[in-house]
Amino acid sequence: MFETTLAVIGNVLTAPEWRRTSSDNTLVANFRVASTSRRYDRETGAWVDGHSLRVRVSAWRRLAENVASSIAVGDPIVVYGRIYTRDWVDDDNNNRISYEMEAYAIGHDLNRGRARFYRSKPAAS
Amino acid sequence: MFETTLAVIGNVLTAPEWRRTSSDNTLVANFRVASTSRRYDRETGAWVDGHSLRVRVSAWRRLAENVASSIAVGDPIVVYGRIYTRDWVDDDNNNRISYEMEAYAIGHDLNRGRARFYRSKPAAS
Amino acid sequence: MFETTLAVIGNVLTAPEWRRTSSDNTLVANFRVASTSRRYDRETGAWVDGHSLRVRVSAWRRLAENVASSIAVGDPIVVYGRIYTRDWVDDDNNNRISYEMEAYAIGHDLNRGRARFYRSKPAAS
Amino acid sequence: MFETTLAVIGNVLTAPEWRRTSSDNTLVANFRVASTSRRYDRETGAWVDGHSLRVRVSAWRRLAENVASSIAVGDPIVVYGRIYTRDWVDDDNNNRISYEMEAYAIGHDLNRGRARFYRSKPAAS
Repeated sequence: MFETTLAVIGNVLTAPEWRRTSSDNTLVANFRVASTSRRYDRETGAWVDGHSLRVRVSAWRRLAENVASSIAVGDPIVVYGRIYTRDWVDDDNNNRISYEMEAYAIGHDLNRGRARFYRSKPAAS
Repeated sequence: MFETTLAVIGNVLTAPEWRRTSSDNTLVANFRVASTSRRYDRETGAWVDGHSLRVRVSAWRRLAENVASSIAVGDPIVVYGRIYTRDWVDDDNNNRISYEMEAYAIGHDLNRGRARFYRSKPAAS
Repeated sequence: MFETTLAVIGNVLTAPEWRRTSSDNTLVANFRVASTSRRYDRETGAWVDGHSLRVRVSAWRRLAENVASSIAVGDPIVVYGRIYTRDWVDDDNNNRISYEMEAYAIGHDLNRGRARFYRSKPAAS
Repeated sequence: MFETTLAVIGNVLTAPEWRRTSSDNTLVANFRVASTSRRYDRETGAWVDGHSLRVRVSAWRRLAENVASSIAVGDPIVVYGRIYTRDWVDDDNNNRISYEMEAYAIGHDLNRGRARFYRSKPAAS
């Protein structure tokens, strides 16, 4: 079966934090994103908030590096990636589930502003 | 902003349960689906399990009706819909989050078997 | 970069045709699907047809086999897969582009009817 | 039925052109984007080009304005929106189909560089 992919259009909720993995020193950045849909209420004739989605995003390697230097709390972004569940046990020994999204691509949402882009030099492979 | 939509290809984890809403007697069916990705491991040259996603699905009205009569635990399905978070408070007064998916469409996955389809008569609108 | 994936919810426009590839005798089925969106017109207070999408779908191997035996013209389906362009030259020597979708999963849309599913025996791998 | 949405991660092929609609003076920008997937070839042990997708993108209103001032040929971007077909008749009176994507959101792909974002002042609504 396949990775479950999705695109989230929303706002950055928490400042990206980055670290290197202990195993192989890979850079990873994490932050939370929130998206709230808007729907037209036929009875009142007004747009109202619909469902919302909040999810933790991880970005790796060069994407992590550029996220860390480009993205701040409140920024409107579009994130494309895969979503999955992670099982864990909390302090009270309860089985818990969390949902995480690994980003394949992240960009500022040009609906909400202009962007100036500084392309990285291609890595020598 | 927009609904966050996704397609999940996986297996039915729990038998669909259905009920009618108290407010307006609408039929809703709920079940859980699990999807496990497979990836090719270059070092061993074998396919291995990757991330998995488990999520609760709700289906409404005619979709609920047909899900209840067509789908059983273990069935391979494809679900398309929107995902969102729901906030709640557990018995110990902790804030908790759960993720739910409202299905726009559900079908048996024809990768795994044949299907015979009995089309509903169109509702008189 | 990544495959561009999408889910199409629509109706089968043409009966699935199947053949075996000359290179390695793989089974492939092809058909066309059409999806027409509906949108609420605020001025008239009615639902009207919006954009539509028609695209050629290919399915391979076991999916092709089950599509060929399960799907007929007019059936409501959900298709998940990747979309890509194919370049070709027409009889008048013009460069042409067509869009094709390779299905990862296909199922009957349970919004529109009930289904009875006959699971294949797992292939001995 | 529903809009068919997709996310394209690729590069800008043509410079955005913008105009105002004659009917109501709405700003619209158009450009083409190309995405080429990469896949791992097990026989050679190397990554090779897979399928590619090229599609014309339209952006409206504020998104059009910011696209016009932020995006240039060759830029790596992520585009999320809906895809549909448009029917037309060519000079030789042949029925033709083209595929177009209306963008809901567009951003520079931070896999490939850093971005500086200048948020618009919210419009007085």
